[in-house]
Amino acid sequence: MKRKNRLSIKEYKEGILSGNRVILSRAITLVESALEEDNELAAELIDEIYPHTGNSFRIGITGVPGVGKSTFIESFGLHLLKKRKKLAVLTIDPSSQKSGGSILGDKTRMERLSVMENAFIRPSPAGDALGGVAHKTRETMLLCEAAGYDVVFIETVGVGQSETAVKNMVDFFLLLMLAGAGDELQGIKKGIMEMADTIAITKADGANLAASKKARKEYQNALHLFPANENGWNPEVVVCSALENFGLDEIEKRLNDYQQKMKESGFFNYNRKQQAVHWMHQTINFYLKRNFYNQEKIREKIDIFEEAVRAGNKHSVQAARELLSI
Amino acid sequence: MKRKNRLSIKEYKEGILSGNRVILSRAITLVESALEEDNELAAELIDEIYPHTGNSFRIGITGVPGVGKSTFIESFGLHLLKKRKKLAVLTIDPSSQKSGGSILGDKTRMERLSVMENAFIRPSPAGDALGGVAHKTRETMLLCEAAGYDVVFIETVGVGQSETAVKNMVDFFLLLMLAGAGDELQGIKKGIMEMADTIAITKADGANLAASKKARKEYQNALHLFPANENGWNPEVVVCSALENFGLDEIEKRLNDYQQKMKESGFFNYNRKQQAVHWMHQTINFYLKRNFYNQEKIREKIDIFEEAVRAGNKHSVQAARELLSI
Repeated sequence: MKRKNRLSIKEYKEGILSGNRVILSRAITLVESALEEDNELAAELIDEIYPHTGNSFRIGITGVPGVGKSTFIESFGLHLLKKRKKLAVLTIDPSSQKSGGSILGDKTRMERLSVMENAFIRPSPAGDALGGVAHKTRETMLLCEAAGYDVVFIETVGVGQSETAVKNMVDFFLLLMLAGAGDELQGIKKGIMEMADTIAITKADGANLAASKKARKEYQNALHLFPANENGWNPEVVVCSALENFGLDEIEKRLNDYQQKMKESGFFNYNRKQQAVHWMHQTINFYLKRNFYNQEKIREKIDIFEEAVRAGNKHSVQAARELLSI
Repeated sequence: MKRKNRLSIKEYKEGILSGNRVILSRAITLVESALEEDNELAAELIDEIYPHTGNSFRIGITGVPGVGKSTFIESFGLHLLKKRKKLAVLTIDPSSQKSGGSILGDKTRMERLSVMENAFIRPSPAGDALGGVAHKTRETMLLCEAAGYDVVFIETVGVGQSETAVKNMVDFFLLLMLAGAGDELQGIKKGIMEMADTIAITKADGANLAASKKARKEYQNALHLFPANENGWNPEVVVCSALENFGLDEIEKRLNDYQQKMKESGFFNYNRKQQAVHWMHQTINFYLKRNFYNQEKIREKIDIFEEAVRAGNKHSVQAARELLSI
């Protein structure tokens, strides 16, 4: 059963719990594997480390390309490391699907952070159309927690594909925006704004500072237009500059306030429990779909059926029923 | 195989194509049935009438309770009937789930429209957690098209549960809003605003007219903050009063403009084809989940597993895998 390059469950577990980064990386590779036998091993491993998970503050960070996500994460990450935090950064980038990952790219773009003893940076593979990304990212997050990382960033590109899934696995959602990008919200979908627990306007430095403060007011007004969150939290807009290390304290304060208030009100745990039930159903659905679409006979036919539906030669329900009874 | 109160496929088909409302109603009941043998018959019927579908303008209408949806739909419906349209109104109300439907309620709240020869009003059952609602509403829409209705309204309550599904089955999405309801968007989720092809501010009459015109401007500004639609359509805000029959012409004009422009650009058909492929996959997913969760052995265990996950005694993936291998 044991594949080349695979350790035993015991070796993975002990390595992870002792904070061994090399073994953590190899465990993540195991979790990300598409091979059936790896899946079994990964499931066993998650079972084993599960009692040691749940102790991090899970933070989703999103923003469109160009907003300065890497720079922000590097600066804010270094800021947190100074406060004796251990930080894991998981990035989900659907656009990197084709190129086969971008580990080097990620490490390069966060040069200073990536060499720090207490930071662990790992891109998540984009997965497939069945929603596998989030699935594996969530398990990777659990591995990082077991390895002792007490802050986990999950970074997405903010184009609306992964954000809902990420919202369902984090405690706090931070949206990065730019000032002075005209009267459009820089391609950010309204649905993503709705998820934000805080909006941070990045690159608020030099000549851009005044515009950033103006944008802060505008976005704050826009946020007020929308209904209150069920947890009573008031999303606010802060300005920051990774270049000048400005605003990072305020963001940290927002995060701490949130954590404290939500733990006091019980929402923090309530939300995690809801998320856990959600993920049980998501996982069931993921396997149902994977098992169905991965069948050889379905893979052979799916394109033909899609084309028939597109051309109007079959209607949707008919095509679905035919595929289900192949 | 033929159940009491069930007609033959031929009888259903002929009745529907001749525009017989009683038979159309009975066919919808068949489509809505949860019984396996009815499902088979319904699938056959949809196959039969499918070549006669697709000829209506499909319009999603949403807004929170209190915005005056029924009054608006009645007035705008009567307005369209005067233009020699045949109108079907399908309503989805998740809150009516418990009460077992609200046919009488719907007919009562649209008294004038419900007695018109060329209007057909039918509430859709709320269905179950598996997303069955939308599934059945879509098939009901197809039956109405086969019966010659050339405008179909699909009305939802605007609380965010059914709107995405409805957006995926209509050509045009109309959002109803109220003026002067404070600085909150009346509980409307941002994600729903994003779907709107037009926003209509209702009850713009009497003392409320000035406030409505002000709100029009505010909402128009809010819409401009968001990115353009892929089809190049510019969502606009109109004011109307069902009471004074004011603004209905403008809304009709918007609808006609949309239809004309989108047919010219090819987006209308492109969108319908995309929707059809989407519904094939949705239908597959619906049946996969239904077949799984409807198993006696799963029904017996699901609550216990949810509770175990909520209590932290099992983790999500473990619970999912155990359920899948029961």
